[in-house]
Amino acid sequence: MNDRIMADMRMTRAEVDEFRALHRKEGRTASGMFLLEGWRALAEAIDGPIDCVAVREDMLDRPELEALRARSIPIREVSERDARRISATEQSQGVVARVRMIWSDVTTLFRPGETIVLALDGVGDPGNLGTILRTASWFGARGVLLGRGCVDPFNDKVVRSTAGSLFHVPMVGDIDLPISLGAARSAGCQVVVADSAGAVDLPDWRPSRRCVLVLGSETHGPSPSVRAAVDLAVRVPRFGRGESLNVAIAAGILLAHMRMHSIS
Amino acid sequence: MNDRIMADMRMTRAEVDEFRALHRKEGRTASGMFLLEGWRALAEAIDGPIDCVAVREDMLDRPELEALRARSIPIREVSERDARRISATEQSQGVVARVRMIWSDVTTLFRPGETIVLALDGVGDPGNLGTILRTASWFGARGVLLGRGCVDPFNDKVVRSTAGSLFHVPMVGDIDLPISLGAARSAGCQVVVADSAGAVDLPDWRPSRRCVLVLGSETHGPSPSVRAAVDLAVRVPRFGRGESLNVAIAAGILLAHMRMHSIS
Repeated sequence: MNDRIMADMRMTRAEVDEFRALHRKEGRTASGMFLLEGWRALAEAIDGPIDCVAVREDMLDRPELEALRARSIPIREVSERDARRISATEQSQGVVARVRMIWSDVTTLFRPGETIVLALDGVGDPGNLGTILRTASWFGARGVLLGRGCVDPFNDKVVRSTAGSLFHVPMVGDIDLPISLGAARSAGCQVVVADSAGAVDLPDWRPSRRCVLVLGSETHGPSPSVRAAVDLAVRVPRFGRGESLNVAIAAGILLAHMRMHSIS
Repeated sequence: MNDRIMADMRMTRAEVDEFRALHRKEGRTASGMFLLEGWRALAEAIDGPIDCVAVREDMLDRPELEALRARSIPIREVSERDARRISATEQSQGVVARVRMIWSDVTTLFRPGETIVLALDGVGDPGNLGTILRTASWFGARGVLLGRGCVDPFNDKVVRSTAGSLFHVPMVGDIDLPISLGAARSAGCQVVVADSAGAVDLPDWRPSRRCVLVLGSETHGPSPSVRAAVDLAVRVPRFGRGESLNVAIAAGILLAHMRMHSIS
């Protein structure tokens, strides 16, 4: 084991700067890479496209690193100071992986068979997007379409909120939603938007086995061009008070309904 | 209007410090007050126990302030620098209200009749707690029991995540949950815990019209003494991947089920 540890090279200053550049969207877009922090997230992503892992010098004997060494993934030793510099959180866990982004293609999502796809229209809060991706993974969604105006899913707050689910749900980015929703309908999918002013109450909706669920922005709801592209607007009935449900909560309630009450 | 504006006094340095002390839990506990930021939150809380409102000097003619002046609630003019100092957010909206905490009594929650009560066992993330309170308000819960180990609901991140719902749901704090859950059962309530290892799948659960829903901590789930105090452990079935659902998402799915599929 000792000679393996010896093989982990010290991270150069240039590499530290390359990692740090990934805290900004421009840096991620230019390189096609993003950062994933923490031991648990690393364990969840272990089969993912990990490019390089920075590990604080006192943690090089962590057992999680064996699987990386076995796959010849470069491990770079960093000082405590550099570990803090490449971390986006205040309490660094001492491990940051650089991972290749994976984007899917929209045509794969509407293949024949049972399917649930989410389409997000301007979901701007990183915590909400991360929680939606985690929930989509739990309910086995085939994929998530990210319309223009959504926050970058490789933003570190999103990555953290997914709790490791980022690689479990194929994502398609920078989508023109009205066009893609039209394609979904042509492929026989029911396209439904969650809307607090929707005409159909949730209990009255029997979801199709091929279904696209559209969720709007936290502040403005779904945009008019997206509303015009759906079959149905469904609302979660209100029994108490409040202006609206949080968008991730609405996603969870509707996904649960789609899985448990669809037409069989 | 001008003479009314003249009546708004400048905030003293001592008052600025009093507001700032409320960013810490000790300061809130000592005074029984907390801070509420932003114009939208103020509008939602307008009938609540507002004690004093600090307004940035360039915003004293905002129409929202008329209702406060009509109720003789003190408005204090602050400089831009002081507005930033009393704000907990990086982008201050220029208004911070000091509001009296309201706590309810546990005995009121189990009165006869239809009831939904939430019981939170160590929900530690402010965003999760705020979202749970907002969702409980939407579904008309009668109240929320906060077990020991929950984050302070008057923490500014919680207050922000409730989106104004903090006054819509009665809260009871610092609860010994096993004792209160026993009292709920004695009062004829069904006590159910959300648990990913639960024995009953959500679609198989017919909720009673008197029901207490228990939610556990994000990292450890419900504690053993709480598990031992419930009638039933219900799980949201997994159709895809992931270790667990986010606790606020689980709350939303179960509350929706309780409202839409209860025994009538």
